[in-house]
Amino acid sequence: MTEQMTAEPAPPTLVQKLAAEAIGTAFLVLIGCGAAVATGADVVATGLAFGITIVMMAYTFGRVSGGHFNPAVTVGAALAGRIAWKDTPLYAAAQVVGGLVGGVVLMVIVLAGDLGWDFGEPLGSNGWGDSGNIELFGALILEIVLTFVFVFVIVGVTDERNDTVAFAPLVIGLALAAVHFVGINFTGTSVNPARSIGVAWFSGSDALIALWVFIVAPLIGGAAAGFLYPLLFGHGATPIPGSGIPSGGATATVPGFGAPDAFQQQWNQPVADQGGYAAPAPAEQPIIQDGWQWDPSTQQWIPAQQPPAPQAPQAEQPGGWAPPGGEHTQVRPPDA
Amino acid sequence: MTEQMTAEPAPPTLVQKLAAEAIGTAFLVLIGCGAAVATGADVVATGLAFGITIVMMAYTFGRVSGGHFNPAVTVGAALAGRIAWKDTPLYAAAQVVGGLVGGVVLMVIVLAGDLGWDFGEPLGSNGWGDSGNIELFGALILEIVLTFVFVFVIVGVTDERNDTVAFAPLVIGLALAAVHFVGINFTGTSVNPARSIGVAWFSGSDALIALWVFIVAPLIGGAAAGFLYPLLFGHGATPIPGSGIPSGGATATVPGFGAPDAFQQQWNQPVADQGGYAAPAPAEQPIIQDGWQWDPSTQQWIPAQQPPAPQAPQAEQPGGWAPPGGEHTQVRPPDA
Amino acid sequence: MTEQMTAEPAPPTLVQKLAAEAIGTAFLVLIGCGAAVATGADVVATGLAFGITIVMMAYTFGRVSGGHFNPAVTVGAALAGRIAWKDTPLYAAAQVVGGLVGGVVLMVIVLAGDLGWDFGEPLGSNGWGDSGNIELFGALILEIVLTFVFVFVIVGVTDERNDTVAFAPLVIGLALAAVHFVGINFTGTSVNPARSIGVAWFSGSDALIALWVFIVAPLIGGAAAGFLYPLLFGHGATPIPGSGIPSGGATATVPGFGAPDAFQQQWNQPVADQGGYAAPAPAEQPIIQDGWQWDPSTQQWIPAQQPPAPQAPQAEQPGGWAPPGGEHTQVRPPDA
Amino acid sequence: MTEQMTAEPAPPTLVQKLAAEAIGTAFLVLIGCGAAVATGADVVATGLAFGITIVMMAYTFGRVSGGHFNPAVTVGAALAGRIAWKDTPLYAAAQVVGGLVGGVVLMVIVLAGDLGWDFGEPLGSNGWGDSGNIELFGALILEIVLTFVFVFVIVGVTDERNDTVAFAPLVIGLALAAVHFVGINFTGTSVNPARSIGVAWFSGSDALIALWVFIVAPLIGGAAAGFLYPLLFGHGATPIPGSGIPSGGATATVPGFGAPDAFQQQWNQPVADQGGYAAPAPAEQPIIQDGWQWDPSTQQWIPAQQPPAPQAPQAEQPGGWAPPGGEHTQVRPPDA
Repeated sequence: MTEQMTAEPAPPTLVQKLAAEAIGTAFLVLIGCGAAVATGADVVATGLAFGITIVMMAYTFGRVSGGHFNPAVTVGAALAGRIAWKDTPLYAAAQVVGGLVGGVVLMVIVLAGDLGWDFGEPLGSNGWGDSGNIELFGALILEIVLTFVFVFVIVGVTDERNDTVAFAPLVIGLALAAVHFVGINFTGTSVNPARSIGVAWFSGSDALIALWVFIVAPLIGGAAAGFLYPLLFGHGATPIPGSGIPSGGATATVPGFGAPDAFQQQWNQPVADQGGYAAPAPAEQPIIQDGWQWDPSTQQWIPAQQPPAPQAPQAEQPGGWAPPGGEHTQVRPPDA
Repeated sequence: MTEQMTAEPAPPTLVQKLAAEAIGTAFLVLIGCGAAVATGADVVATGLAFGITIVMMAYTFGRVSGGHFNPAVTVGAALAGRIAWKDTPLYAAAQVVGGLVGGVVLMVIVLAGDLGWDFGEPLGSNGWGDSGNIELFGALILEIVLTFVFVFVIVGVTDERNDTVAFAPLVIGLALAAVHFVGINFTGTSVNPARSIGVAWFSGSDALIALWVFIVAPLIGGAAAGFLYPLLFGHGATPIPGSGIPSGGATATVPGFGAPDAFQQQWNQPVADQGGYAAPAPAEQPIIQDGWQWDPSTQQWIPAQQPPAPQAPQAEQPGGWAPPGGEHTQVRPPDA
Repeated sequence: MTEQMTAEPAPPTLVQKLAAEAIGTAFLVLIGCGAAVATGADVVATGLAFGITIVMMAYTFGRVSGGHFNPAVTVGAALAGRIAWKDTPLYAAAQVVGGLVGGVVLMVIVLAGDLGWDFGEPLGSNGWGDSGNIELFGALILEIVLTFVFVFVIVGVTDERNDTVAFAPLVIGLALAAVHFVGINFTGTSVNPARSIGVAWFSGSDALIALWVFIVAPLIGGAAAGFLYPLLFGHGATPIPGSGIPSGGATATVPGFGAPDAFQQQWNQPVADQGGYAAPAPAEQPIIQDGWQWDPSTQQWIPAQQPPAPQAPQAEQPGGWAPPGGEHTQVRPPDA
Repeated sequence: MTEQMTAEPAPPTLVQKLAAEAIGTAFLVLIGCGAAVATGADVVATGLAFGITIVMMAYTFGRVSGGHFNPAVTVGAALAGRIAWKDTPLYAAAQVVGGLVGGVVLMVIVLAGDLGWDFGEPLGSNGWGDSGNIELFGALILEIVLTFVFVFVIVGVTDERNDTVAFAPLVIGLALAAVHFVGINFTGTSVNPARSIGVAWFSGSDALIALWVFIVAPLIGGAAAGFLYPLLFGHGATPIPGSGIPSGGATATVPGFGAPDAFQQQWNQPVADQGGYAAPAPAEQPIIQDGWQWDPSTQQWIPAQQPPAPQAPQAEQPGGWAPPGGEHTQVRPPDA
């Protein structure tokens, strides 16, 4: 590396983050639904196409946006303390826009190629009842459960206490493939409102009528996973300011909910024991990280006074999973 | 990272370990048997669904519980010196509970979705004779052999002398997929009593009558692998206190069984040669590790007198495979 | 390692680079098209065969040539600043030669094995209209879009700001598999002119007439991806001299195109802010890297005066993705 | 880690190496041919079963034996300078024994399970002509070419100049899967004499008559790859004493064959340039590595006089691919 490269890369801008989320979701619809269309929803090919697209986009854009590509993931990440609530609508909007773009490109290819599809017929859309192979309540439970599994894996495998976070994008993509192996023959597998919206609008009235399930159920499942994982297994890093349970403050524990001192980790406490559960960082104390200081009034990072250690500021990277690379793949230094 | 994070994470609690084992086994039944139900036991889709679920849960929970999700793995790990015998019934109980929960959720989805299944019909269950495509003795040998292969890989790939332990969860999951490619068309592939119990109870009397094979055979195969690997290839780390061959002491070699000095490794001995095979650590000498001291009377770790090096105590992480992350992915320090 | 090995390996020669590109492309046609012939273009087997061949050749030859094996990738890499334009025709020529060799070997096997194919019948060739399952405009758009996705992933996942570049060859191969899952049933999936040329010449007149689409469309898609990624997300490393937008100088930003200071990264700048976008390195200042100095007149690296740090010169490794190994897998040193 | 573990593991014994090769080959026949039998040679399931078994055994036993499990790999590794010729017959014998054991176990399962097979019928065997779907010359060329590809990848991806050698077992297993995708429908894919021998003896006279092709062709293909790779791309490490081209001395270059100074690497030379190609290490100078000294008379390593650096002696690990872990995954130390 040249000398120039010892300077840390600047954090990605918000525009870049939203562009990354939109592009990744567009590719997801294009490749995943495209494989479903091309193979008649062959389970292995379609499931792997969805999963691999997450693998490739998460390794590409994990550093930029965290690599969600899915509003259910973003909501789960917000509850798990990984992204600020104020960013979640922007992420979700970018994802829906990306899903729509991916759907349009897919539709254009199918029409230009004269592949025997007409506007208003199902094209990679999700369904139940008349438009699927499963009844309403089964579809609801299935999509809630599959999204719960998927987002639970995302939140768990990116826990910073794991030193194998470099594998996280691979694991998450494989998880999406496995989830598809279960759901393709029933609902077509959504677990992602942006993916379902992206192809529903041109897939006919049945697909549109069915759509609400694939918005509501994934959001419920993702929220449940993002809520339960830190409750059971604690946090691997200080939660992002402005994330977590909205009513309880940024990093509050849930009072009266189970026995937090039995479940919560104390790992990121100072050496002195403080009573068996992770006390939230007092908000009055300035949050200084790698030479950046959090300004609660403007809700952004400003340079701190001290000369920073050469490391990327982390809180500007809200992410469902830890940015591949960065500190997370850092191998422990020799003990001495 | 903030300054706070230089403190080591606390070891997971026993409750967290059992929760991890239960959740992982529930997901295994839900996704693996779910894919079998959804695809009519398509070999590739079902095998990959089981395997990928292990990949994702082992990367998520390897740090917490070791990531067994299978009583046959836990028994093999105990014989291989990776988990104390006193923890094995707790692990097995958590796994069976998780398998039952996964089975219930799967059954609820199938019933709520009106997918054409009634209570008492086979639903992802294992079988032989009337309920499978193989006769009893073939089923017994097949399940013993496949579990032997699976657990042998687990114990071998997590040997701490391998510096690629970060890949272990991926390899183990792929191994489970490959094992399924062989067994699905015969017994449905168990190699895991908890998975078989989880769906047998609602799959009819034939499945219940067949069940004992899928409890006994995997335990035999897993025990054989956990016994043979260290006998042939030695131990990669000091065995966990309270593990190993029950009748011979925690870390005893097997007297008169082959030529231990030809097979056993001496690698974790002090520099002085002690006769060609690994002498068990004398129990009288206090076991101090990273500032924690083993208390043989209470069977738990207590803080040692000396100020500890900032590293997680390891013996409190019984695991079939090494916790992903942690010391195991530690890259060798520069020689100098 | 012995003492001798502390000396850095010499950079690969141009002949070795071209041999690597030719061999890799030959294997791609042989294994990928071979699987298509053997399985009747089974989507999963054929897609995985193409993808896995890229995985294996990129891990083998990434260090040597960058591992393109595809003129569309080489053009995209040139626009993205990863390879000098002067090398692109050599790479493309080597790739086409390799593709032809792979095609000949495949043809010889099929003929010698009496597998029921005669010269002039389709054998792993791409098509549209009479020779495919999609009409011309659909084929054009499909191949442009799929190549765009593929090359975008290549350029993005190898961005040196990602610390997981060691996974790049795996991710890129999986991406090629996913792209095939979409395209096999329509055009057979080219996204690679060298692959299409390699088997078109013996696959009959329809394949030859269709061939131009599989040369033009991949080049367009690859160029678009190589152009757009750095425009949106900046450069991860100083571009290779002689690469980038031809009319604008080696590393010029695109004047008047969007708002570069909003999109471009300033990460490899010295600490002092220079105006919000990455200023190209002034050409007058000698480029010294790891003890090698760039000689603009002869367009090659010459040893610099100062004793070099023991690291491989990088600019002599033009590559679509970063050489696996090398600096890219370098784990961050301890902060202190 | 405890203090005890700072001592280096002892190198594996020859008995352990041969046990590893036998066990790995037995698993390969058991799982690979087992999947072929169970699925009716489904291309994807069978190919992945073979490939995954290599992944799992190579990550388990790469440290012990190098993880060949295939005489064609061992011969290629010997020509590539990775294993001494004197060890190759022992390896090949262990592999054949393992293959036979795997075949017996598979046969016992099929017979005990009453799966409709009788002794003398094909059971996972390779074939051509009457016992396959390809004629003799096609089978010969196919097996030579596929083995060439497979062994070329093995030798190339484990070249120590690659810093991603930790991925090598994964890549090699995937390569075997891809090779199977091409060959299963023609010869059943051998590329491994031990695998073919293991099931041929009970698969009837046609399989036995066909067997010679699956011994000769893989050995030719593997030898060609092991010979050509270092000729074209040089050596990544000092060749193992007693390996390489037999007639030319341990590490001799091939006189008059091409232009060695254009092809060969000089990387492991001392800093002083010695004429543009890798001069073989003079045999008169004692070979000292990590405190071990090579004794040419007894052909084994003896402790050197100087106190060794704490690193494993390497030359006692003959291997087709570099031992996963060990030096090969060593991350570069910080430059300073």
